Amino acid sequence: MTIVPNRIEGAAKHVAARDAQIPKEWKFDSSIIPHNPSTFYRHNLSEDEIHIVELDATALARAIAEGTYTSAQVTEAYLKSAAAAHAGTNCLAWFDVELARQRARWLDQQLMQSGKPVGPLHGVPMSVKDFLCVKGFTQSSGHLSSAGHTPQEDADIVAIFRAAGVVFFAKTTQPQSIMHLETSNFYGTTTNAYNRLLTCGGSSGGEGALVGCHGSPIGISTDPTTKRVPRDGMLGVTAHSRICGSIGPVCHSVRDMDLFYKVLFEAQSWKHDIKLVPLGWRHVDTNGQGAGFDGWSGQGNTMRIGIIRDDGVVRPVAPVRRALDAVVGKLSARTDVELVEFPQLFSKEAWSITQQLYYTDGGRKLDEALGDEPKLPLTEWITSKAKDLNRQEVDALVARRNSMRQLYYDHFKSFRLDVILSPAGPAPAQPLETTKYWSYTSFWNLLDWPAAVFPTGLHVDPAVDEETYPNPNNEAEEHLFSTYSATIGQGSPIGLQLIAPRWQDERLMAALKKIDQVLPLA
Amino acid sequence: MTIVPNRIEGAAKHVAARDAQIPKEWKFDSSIIPHNPSTFYRHNLSEDEIHIVELDATALARAIAEGTYTSAQVTEAYLKSAAAAHAGTNCLAWFDVELARQRARWLDQQLMQSGKPVGPLHGVPMSVKDFLCVKGFTQSSGHLSSAGHTPQEDADIVAIFRAAGVVFFAKTTQPQSIMHLETSNFYGTTTNAYNRLLTCGGSSGGEGALVGCHGSPIGISTDPTTKRVPRDGMLGVTAHSRICGSIGPVCHSVRDMDLFYKVLFEAQSWKHDIKLVPLGWRHVDTNGQGAGFDGWSGQGNTMRIGIIRDDGVVRPVAPVRRALDAVVGKLSARTDVELVEFPQLFSKEAWSITQQLYYTDGGRKLDEALGDEPKLPLTEWITSKAKDLNRQEVDALVARRNSMRQLYYDHFKSFRLDVILSPAGPAPAQPLETTKYWSYTSFWNLLDWPAAVFPTGLHVDPAVDEETYPNPNNEAEEHLFSTYSATIGQGSPIGLQLIAPRWQDERLMAALKKIDQVLPLA
Repeated sequence: MTIVPNRIEGAAKHVAARDAQIPKEWKFDSSIIPHNPSTFYRHNLSEDEIHIVELDATALARAIAEGTYTSAQVTEAYLKSAAAAHAGTNCLAWFDVELARQRARWLDQQLMQSGKPVGPLHGVPMSVKDFLCVKGFTQSSGHLSSAGHTPQEDADIVAIFRAAGVVFFAKTTQPQSIMHLETSNFYGTTTNAYNRLLTCGGSSGGEGALVGCHGSPIGISTDPTTKRVPRDGMLGVTAHSRICGSIGPVCHSVRDMDLFYKVLFEAQSWKHDIKLVPLGWRHVDTNGQGAGFDGWSGQGNTMRIGIIRDDGVVRPVAPVRRALDAVVGKLSARTDVELVEFPQLFSKEAWSITQQLYYTDGGRKLDEALGDEPKLPLTEWITSKAKDLNRQEVDALVARRNSMRQLYYDHFKSFRLDVILSPAGPAPAQPLETTKYWSYTSFWNLLDWPAAVFPTGLHVDPAVDEETYPNPNNEAEEHLFSTYSATIGQGSPIGLQLIAPRWQDERLMAALKKIDQVLPLA
Repeated sequence: MTIVPNRIEGAAKHVAARDAQIPKEWKFDSSIIPHNPSTFYRHNLSEDEIHIVELDATALARAIAEGTYTSAQVTEAYLKSAAAAHAGTNCLAWFDVELARQRARWLDQQLMQSGKPVGPLHGVPMSVKDFLCVKGFTQSSGHLSSAGHTPQEDADIVAIFRAAGVVFFAKTTQPQSIMHLETSNFYGTTTNAYNRLLTCGGSSGGEGALVGCHGSPIGISTDPTTKRVPRDGMLGVTAHSRICGSIGPVCHSVRDMDLFYKVLFEAQSWKHDIKLVPLGWRHVDTNGQGAGFDGWSGQGNTMRIGIIRDDGVVRPVAPVRRALDAVVGKLSARTDVELVEFPQLFSKEAWSITQQLYYTDGGRKLDEALGDEPKLPLTEWITSKAKDLNRQEVDALVARRNSMRQLYYDHFKSFRLDVILSPAGPAPAQPLETTKYWSYTSFWNLLDWPAAVFPTGLHVDPAVDEETYPNPNNEAEEHLFSTYSATIGQGSPIGLQLIAPRWQDERLMAALKKIDQVLPLA
């Protein structure tokens, strides 16, 4: 099944340990794995099981609570489907069939005895990005020296979902250094759910691949506004990063995102975690009222969306432009939406500051953690962008970042926007080991604004998307134009993103529901 | 009037410019200034004016709104009283009789024409700590090279209170480096409102002296939880500090504090200032219900107060112990309060980290700002405690501070406390130029917990408070014991403080109202 060879010496025993967790009868000869493994689960699941893994988490929770399915049935379907997803993408970092089955049985008993679910996600399987601790699940932070650790405590966020009744069954892969867009480490390379020649992205690439292949209904990954949900129990070499991430879901529907945040915020983690702001989830209605706002900002209470077509550094390739045009076209037919072209600011500078602030120590601490482990090419590449800064240099960059945060917000407000619609990157998933520019998303990490990436329903189609890009403006654009191919990328889904200002996670979700009404486009 | 000579060469022109702002008829021969100038205003105010300056801001606002007094009358009374306060304490950094009178007349006209106040503080005079910009009021950041600047824009916080209808009339003094407890700079030394041999404290010493002498009903100063109220337009050499302050009032009553926060939070500054958290002022009732809490934590919904008697580093002197005993005695007679001894943690380490984090650059930037200006002794002393740190050292101290924040909160919660009652310092106001230990208050800055200092109604009385302190445990204690004297400190008011966890500003205010019911003690 290996597409890219595993180049990490000493990885074998960890790979073997992980592989031993997957029952033999759920392993597949690599010759039968299709180029697009996103529906490969149909190969080894029963009709009922196929039906189960095509439900979203909200529907699953309801079906279990109402007795349509037991958690044991649902869990079994997902265990099988996850094994198929893994065969197609190498997305699992750990897998525990027995812990999952035990937990599902216990939940079924509880429901039978008490007649009521233990929480709003009673019996629903949930996957978790590797660096978040799940009690009893062997894990890593992406590099070899962190591998094989088995936590005896749940991360705070994991404990919240455990209390909500989920069944943990899988940990998912992440990049060697966590911080880049190629999910490749000592477990090998994770590939795209829709096309094995493409990256699954990162850092939550394993979650993306597993959920994309219906191997999990919902997974814990990263990012709304920071300081609203707990981060304790997240293990990674991030001490010298000044780009702060946050927890978010990978899932199949907008209502699942809602459910995820409902559970997360009802835990009121700020009552024990002093780092968090005591700001509960605020209801925002379809008119944009709530969370301190009187309604959407457009004329006649229409939702006013700023369109970023291009960040001015790396121009989007044809399929991304096509998807954005299509969504804008659909939205412009609506009377409850107002669209306005919105020029992006600071792109070049933001990307430069972001690359540097990922590693204020120039990647030294990561080097120490890696030890003799070779740096994978994109780890090498991203860390080469960061210098070991002194105090004055860090202070100056952080000050500039803070000033950009205010200037950008002023810019946003001067257009009276509610949200921004933008490409999620200059291209859909790129060929393996070529992704070097992700400032379309990391820009919002730098500002600390929440963003939601959603599929448009459109897929890359060489018939309409193949194009030559003759005149790159800079090295980053040249690299993208020379590595992108609609032919290689065929079938890959095209996503876009919706963004709202810091703290306005609730307005983002309300806006996303409106966008969702025009989707899927195909 | 000079008690401590002004040691800053080149200060004369700024002192002269400031003095020229005070009308001749409101200047006093130093021979008639009493040792305790807190009621010296009675010397040159009419009966009506005396009545006016003895009201709190809430009462003043009501009296003006109801037409009992005009803003012009009230303002004139405070202008005269402020001049007297200044004669007694040297607390003014700037004074503008004409701007104040114009503003008061305009407000009176508005009220007459429209029949309604422009805001909840219509016509009420307000003083402002020097480093906060007030349009048209010449200001400084404490050192000479910053002096003489006249801003054309209000600081955000000042603009909020201007919109609420206040009359600005005075800027108040602050320390040379802002960050210590001796209010002494090129304007000379500001002395205590109750005893001219004592410090007025700092950094808001000028506000303390002016309000203490009834020269202002309420002033803008510093600190609740950070990131709730705006800081833009605060000019100081703070770029290299990692101890973050926040805006708060100096005033005469708990209800004035309430009014101050009501005005401040109703401005919803987070809607334009992206640094702020969108957390409005939340109502907390007398049962402690509100702001996400179901009530006070003690048995039968009693308010549970932890008593810190001693921080373990510098033990409080006799009058402080007496005041704490007295308040505890009064509280223990109440059935709605539960008291528990609460051991302080981290005192020594916290003070050491605080001193260092004030100046992560070892005070270099301050040195640059001072140029040839001599460092005053306590500026020299506090900056000598800080080294020029490298990035790793700053990161390590900030990480330790963050870990202390969580550990302390866990400690607090393990005692199931609502608030903490503690000395506000190891001694009441100390003799001039001797105050070197303020970790009883800076500790809460380090944790970012809101604290309110309140007068107990008790004053230093050599008959009961003179005591020898034979066995100091360390240098800081030795310094305090050797410089403190109840005889010199006679008549100085004894304050205590009430503290609540980060973000719980509203619970702190609700708790303060309960404490206020047993005050004053004499």
